[in-house]
Amino acid sequence: MAEIEFDPTTHPHRRLNPLTNEHVLVSPHRTKRPWLGQTEPPQPSSLPPYDPACYLCPGNARAGGQRNPAYAHTMVFENDYAAVLPAPGPAAPPAPHPLLTTAPVQGGCDVLCFHPRHDLTLARLTVPDIERIVNEWGAIYRRRGAQEGIKYVQIFENKGAMMGCSNPHPHGQVWSLSAVPSLPATELANLTAYAHSTPPTPSAPAGPHGRACMLCDYASFEVRVAREEGRVVVQNEHWVALVPWWAIWPFEIMLLPYARHIPSIAELTQEEKTAFAEILSRLTKRYDNLFSCSFAYSMGVHQRPVPAPGGDDGDDVAHLHLHFTPPLLRSASVRKFLVGFELMGEPQRDLTPEQAAARLRACSEVHYLDVAEQAASAEKPMSKDVDSTNS
Amino acid sequence: MAEIEFDPTTHPHRRLNPLTNEHVLVSPHRTKRPWLGQTEPPQPSSLPPYDPACYLCPGNARAGGQRNPAYAHTMVFENDYAAVLPAPGPAAPPAPHPLLTTAPVQGGCDVLCFHPRHDLTLARLTVPDIERIVNEWGAIYRRRGAQEGIKYVQIFENKGAMMGCSNPHPHGQVWSLSAVPSLPATELANLTAYAHSTPPTPSAPAGPHGRACMLCDYASFEVRVAREEGRVVVQNEHWVALVPWWAIWPFEIMLLPYARHIPSIAELTQEEKTAFAEILSRLTKRYDNLFSCSFAYSMGVHQRPVPAPGGDDGDDVAHLHLHFTPPLLRSASVRKFLVGFELMGEPQRDLTPEQAAARLRACSEVHYLDVAEQAASAEKPMSKDVDSTNS
Ligand SMILES: [Zn+2]
Ligand SMILES: [Zn+2]
Repeated sequence: MAEIEFDPTTHPHRRLNPLTNEHVLVSPHRTKRPWLGQTEPPQPSSLPPYDPACYLCPGNARAGGQRNPAYAHTMVFENDYAAVLPAPGPAAPPAPHPLLTTAPVQGGCDVLCFHPRHDLTLARLTVPDIERIVNEWGAIYRRRGAQEGIKYVQIFENKGAMMGCSNPHPHGQVWSLSAVPSLPATELANLTAYAHSTPPTPSAPAGPHGRACMLCDYASFEVRVAREEGRVVVQNEHWVALVPWWAIWPFEIMLLPYARHIPSIAELTQEEKTAFAEILSRLTKRYDNLFSCSFAYSMGVHQRPVPAPGGDDGDDVAHLHLHFTPPLLRSASVRKFLVGFELMGEPQRDLTPEQAAARLRACSEVHYLDVAEQAASAEKPMSKDVDSTNS
Repeated sequence: MAEIEFDPTTHPHRRLNPLTNEHVLVSPHRTKRPWLGQTEPPQPSSLPPYDPACYLCPGNARAGGQRNPAYAHTMVFENDYAAVLPAPGPAAPPAPHPLLTTAPVQGGCDVLCFHPRHDLTLARLTVPDIERIVNEWGAIYRRRGAQEGIKYVQIFENKGAMMGCSNPHPHGQVWSLSAVPSLPATELANLTAYAHSTPPTPSAPAGPHGRACMLCDYASFEVRVAREEGRVVVQNEHWVALVPWWAIWPFEIMLLPYARHIPSIAELTQEEKTAFAEILSRLTKRYDNLFSCSFAYSMGVHQRPVPAPGGDDGDDVAHLHLHFTPPLLRSASVRKFLVGFELMGEPQRDLTPEQAAARLRACSEVHYLDVAEQAASAEKPMSKDVDSTNS
């Protein structure tokens, strides 16, 4: 019997995520099945620049009764309904059974407004405005990290009604906790194991103590793959945005620095911060242009846990990176659900990461709404004439 | 300073899931925050018993062109757009980098119609009809398990438009693969580690070789907790349905046998199968009654991987159990989203598992639609009189 040759765009296979040690099932042959679901035309943005009912707009009152300042760039405040409360908290109670353990947790939850304009998102902010957000992330990481007992500062953004986020005003959150959450803890354990088990790659930047860094190795490899076959979507001198080999969501992105090993946002140089803002702008514009809509996603920053006071705690193996997990699959209204086999077995995807990267590479970096507005303003004189003739 | 005493209904804390070694963040104080979202009245069921457009109804044509028989109980067929394909498949290709591995996977995907009636669900089927489904699960587990190369038979049900399931006709799926999916593989590894590290509990059933079984230990403990403080929702002589200590979803349920260690559905006695059908009926009725709606969920059966030919492969440590992960939170229309911090950090919940169990214990085991139909038929003569008077 003749050997069948493996074709990643045809043959079902599993890919391993070395950051979590979990697999994703890839079923590329299914992209050939007929699509029976509905699709809808893209929705034009109709948000006002200021919404008197928005609790994040400048000058408005929040649920807790406080009033927002007339802020010009970013604004940070403590969440009125935080998931964790400040220290001191109670001690751990005795477990009723060894399998039923409780660990008290303390911390604080901050809300970061990205910009006063209600109708803008990262995709429509200027690079200097995005750099102000990057600076705020760094400031919160340092400020919260200096508080007694804080071990992890989880920066994230949840965007879009599809993600359960009811307020379109551009904002993110930062939850600072006395424990490292499960996902970054798992990643850290796997980065540590890699550093101690893998010989350094001469062509990749080295991690702490000259050891191998999984993400330095991975990113260095990806930026050298021929673009048209690879997973890289956008790249600048310091950062690369790619659809990871083991992506779960159709247009999932990992964004990370690839030129040197950088454990946390606090260690970025000025140039690296500007490049970070620049690539965030380019990536989010491509996202919006993919289906001509404000692209929903959850974004999270994974980085070094707060350094232990007094000396090397081994956590410098962390390599700063961002995950973007957007739910959309085929259009502005057709989403992927992570349910059924995916909740009970393992995640599954049809479109390959390489196909998704090619789709995102084909998108423009000029936002579709800016194109629409430019076209509208170019046509305005004529439209006016028509209007006045008809009236 | 006086010590604060820990109160699980007030103080934020983390609970560990020993099956996955992942935490859930519990923020019970947040259940006190005001609810600003919309709620909608429950939708009455208006499905016809037979839908000529449904590809699962008896006698109708499927996408692949085949026609369903006029089935009277259950019906099984192979999915026309399966996520995996039958063996033989190609060999694994060489990895372009050690971090970019590909493992080909083979198998088959079956669809199991629970009943010919388009408008019924587990919650409205009779216990004998549910027992027929249990028997089909066992038959598929054995049939697929006997096929060359199959290592795992993942039985699941995905129910409700909210879960992306567009067809309300009662049905589940079974994906049989040449690899153990990530989640059951992780559970199996943790069950194995527990068996080898924990002394047996005299009051709990023993696992293979007289060793401790994590789920025998856990279930035996839970059924002995005083009902009003505990997590048990329904129990019969062989099975218990409980909101696990480490539940992520508001009304998540684990359903498992607690009277003896049972690795797989193939090892159930007749009495255990009938009791399984009985508790499935009682649990799903409570689910529907919680918010007077057809309760959406994903359900999965975790059990022993397919036994290796010729001898003890150690996988008898598996303890048969079902997970139910329903998204609803506050009403028929207010759901929980697993996004933001939960995707990037770890799952989080406000309502405690104990509070959720109490809510489900308070629900009736008579389905709300049956109550409504009985009330309607009792009133019919009078309604008729009124109608004829008015006409
Ligand atoms: Zn690195
Ligand atoms: Zn057991």
